[in-house]
Amino acid sequence: MASIFTRIIRGEIPCHRVHEDAHVFAFLDIAPLAPGHVLVVPRQEVEFLHQLDDAHAAALGAALPKVARAMLAATGASAYNLLQNNGALAHQAVPHVHMHLIPRFEDGRGLGIGWRAGQIDHGEAAALAARMREFIA
Amino acid sequence: MASIFTRIIRGEIPCHRVHEDAHVFAFLDIAPLAPGHVLVVPRQEVEFLHQLDDAHAAALGAALPKVARAMLAATGASAYNLLQNNGALAHQAVPHVHMHLIPRFEDGRGLGIGWRAGQIDHGEAAALAARMREFIA
Repeated sequence: MASIFTRIIRGEIPCHRVHEDAHVFAFLDIAPLAPGHVLVVPRQEVEFLHQLDDAHAAALGAALPKVARAMLAATGASAYNLLQNNGALAHQAVPHVHMHLIPRFEDGRGLGIGWRAGQIDHGEAAALAARMREFIA
Repeated sequence: MASIFTRIIRGEIPCHRVHEDAHVFAFLDIAPLAPGHVLVVPRQEVEFLHQLDDAHAAALGAALPKVARAMLAATGASAYNLLQNNGALAHQAVPHVHMHLIPRFEDGRGLGIGWRAGQIDHGEAAALAARMREFIA
């Protein structure tokens, strides 16, 4: 069963299209946090960011500044957030990778951010970073 | 004056390094929202996502799945958020583009998200999307 985003990409469900290329499709979120809230979606239908292949991940990265410039020009916003959620626990609702580009306005429209920063534990951090480097190598 | 992230990339300030390539440098956030919170930073020192050149934007995109896989393997997390903030109004603190990869745990450690979705105004949305397409073309 195709995801709702694949069905939008195929044209089976209408959308307000913003941009597309060989790997990426962008359109307005139907339940926006602020006017001009865009979803940038890889054509590759995978659930999580870490499952994207190199070509789609690079194309998604390359599309973001282009779409962001257009979003700012069209909305007049000067601040914005990029958000991408993986897993229901992390607020993911549709199981097809999507990047939110969300304008932020003075009146509060936009993404709400809860930031409870901790202090780094340098011993634990050194071990975690070493495990990550080992995994990537 | 180089940004604090450029100074970290140059090795002038120590960090817990996770990954690097020709365009991108990744290390642990020193004030993490959860253990294993990674910053992925382009070597290009620009303030906002929309100012990145194509090579850095594509490399940043391509690095994200790699770093995310390593973060999940090292922390045992299965959910996470990607966040990137542009402008003080949108919670940006350091004026050098950086992507947060933040594990999300059952106990609540991770990114807090405030989501006050509106209803799309289809007339306004059609006009906004048309302006965005025109801008990109």
